Amino acid sequence: MRDFSADHRWLSINTATLRGAGKLDAIIEACARHDIRAISPWRDQVAAIGLERTAALVREHGLALSGYCRGGMFPAVDAAGRQAALDDNRRAVDEAKLLDAACLVLVVGGLPGALVGAALTRDIAGAREQVRDGIAATLDYAREVGMPLAIEPLHPMYAADRACINTLEQALDVCDALDPQRSGALGVAVDVYHVWWDPKLEAQIARAGKARLLAFHVCDWLAKTRDLLEDRGMMGDGVIEIAKIRAWVEAAGFAGYSEVEIFSSLDWWKRPVDEVLATCIARHRSAV
Amino acid sequence: MRDFSADHRWLSINTATLRGAGKLDAIIEACARHDIRAISPWRDQVAAIGLERTAALVREHGLALSGYCRGGMFPAVDAAGRQAALDDNRRAVDEAKLLDAACLVLVVGGLPGALVGAALTRDIAGAREQVRDGIAATLDYAREVGMPLAIEPLHPMYAADRACINTLEQALDVCDALDPQRSGALGVAVDVYHVWWDPKLEAQIARAGKARLLAFHVCDWLAKTRDLLEDRGMMGDGVIEIAKIRAWVEAAGFAGYSEVEIFSSLDWWKRPVDEVLATCIARHRSAV
Repeated sequence: MRDFSADHRWLSINTATLRGAGKLDAIIEACARHDIRAISPWRDQVAAIGLERTAALVREHGLALSGYCRGGMFPAVDAAGRQAALDDNRRAVDEAKLLDAACLVLVVGGLPGALVGAALTRDIAGAREQVRDGIAATLDYAREVGMPLAIEPLHPMYAADRACINTLEQALDVCDALDPQRSGALGVAVDVYHVWWDPKLEAQIARAGKARLLAFHVCDWLAKTRDLLEDRGMMGDGVIEIAKIRAWVEAAGFAGYSEVEIFSSLDWWKRPVDEVLATCIARHRSAV
Repeated sequence: MRDFSADHRWLSINTATLRGAGKLDAIIEACARHDIRAISPWRDQVAAIGLERTAALVREHGLALSGYCRGGMFPAVDAAGRQAALDDNRRAVDEAKLLDAACLVLVVGGLPGALVGAALTRDIAGAREQVRDGIAATLDYAREVGMPLAIEPLHPMYAADRACINTLEQALDVCDALDPQRSGALGVAVDVYHVWWDPKLEAQIARAGKARLLAFHVCDWLAKTRDLLEDRGMMGDGVIEIAKIRAWVEAAGFAGYSEVEIFSSLDWWKRPVDEVLATCIARHRSAV
C-alpha cells in the first residue's frame, strides 16, 4: 500500500467538491495553487466555460484527469428518450477523450422521472435491463474511441432516482456480461461513500482486480447524515475505514489517484476554496 | 397469492405508524375501531402504559401480535455494554412471550455511539461479529422460551447507527450459521423499505423459504425522500413494487400478516389517527 502521509501526489480533486468556489477555471487555478496534479471535472462545469477552454487550462497546468463525470442516465420511458441518452453518452465519451480522461464515470440512472420526484414507472428490473443495454451500446463506441467506461455503483438510497446499480457485485456482473475478456474497456468506479457498508466489499474488490478498478473515490459517511445527497463528510470526519478500503483496492492492483468527491451544500461548499483544498490535502495524508 | 382487495384481515399495524396518536392504549382502541386484527407494538410504547395493561388490552380486543419491536442493538465498546445488551434482549424475549408475539424483531445495532452521532469505533466487521455473537446468545434463551427471533436487515443507509446487517443475503447467512437445521427459531423480518432496491431480493426470499420468513413489513419509498429516518411513504405513494415482493414472499410460503410500519414525522404522524388507519386499510387493499 502506498504511503500517502508525506505528500499528495496521488490526490485528485473531483470538481464537484468545489461547487461553492465558482466556475471551473477558478477551480482549476485553485487546484494548481495547491500543487494538485489531477482533477475529475463534471460536464456541466466544463460546458459552462467551454470544452476547448477546459482542455487548454488542463494542458497549461499539466493536470491529469482521473475521470470525467459523467455518462449514464440510460433508462427512459420511450425509444426516443433512450436514443437521446445514447447520443448524449457518445458526446460524453468524445469529451472525455478530448480531455484525455482516465475513464468516463457512469451514473447509470434509475426509474425514469424519479430524479424530479415523479417516477413514471416502478419497474426497477426493467430499468436495469435498459441500463445494461445502454452500457452495451455505449461500450461499442467507447471501445472504438479508446475511452474506458467506469460503472459507479451508487448507494442503495439512490436506487430510485440516480442509479439502479447499487452494489459492486452487481456492477461487476454487468462488466462480466459485457466484457468477459476483461479488456480494460469496462470497469468500475469504487466510491467509498457508496460501498463502505457492503459486507461483500473486500471480496468483490478482489474479484474486480486491476483490470476492472478504474477509479477510487473518497469522502466520508457522517454518523448523523442530515441530507441524502449533499451531506457527505470530509475524510476522517465520519465512520468509513477509508485506509482499509484503499488497502483492498491497491492489493487488487489499483495504482491510480484517490479522488476526493464531496457533495456538501450543508458544509464544505460554503467554505473558502483554499480552506477546502488545504483540508483535502491534510486529510489525504492522514485519513486516506 | 392471497387476494387483499376485499378486506383487511391480513393487515397488521405496527404501532410506530401511529406515533402521533398518543399512548398505546389509545392506539389499540383506534385499531379496534377499524376492525384491525393484529398489531406490532414497540417496547417503549408498551413500557409507557405497562406490560400487564398492554397484555390485558390485547386480550380484550382479541388482537394478534405479528411481531414485537424490538430486540437487538448488540454492539458495545466493552464487556459490560455487551452484557447489558444481552440482558435487555432476554427481557425483550420475555415480554414478547408474555404478549404472545409471533416473533421478536431484531434491529441488530451498528457502530457503538453512532446512534447519538459520535461513533466510538469504525470497526464494522467487529460490530458484525458482536452482532452474530449477540444473536447466538439470545437465541439460546429464545429457544428455551419458545420465541422466534426475526433478524431485520436494515437499509444500508442505517449501517452506521442502527443495523450493520444490511441485506437479506447477509441476514440469511447469519441464520444459516446459527440455525442450520432451519428450526423456525431464527429467521428474518422482510421490510420492503429496507430491501426493495436489492437486485438479489427475489432469489434471497426464495432461499429464506417458509421456515425463515417470520414477518413482512410494508410502507413505501418516496422518490423525493427528505429525511433518512422519518419520511417513509404510505403504500402506493412511492416506487416500491410492493405486490410483486409480497408475491415472492407468499410463493416462498409466508402466510402471515402484512404489517404497516411508517416512520413519518414529516407527514403521517401529523394526521388524525382515524385518517391514518383508514388510509392504511384502503392502501392495503389497493397497493399491497
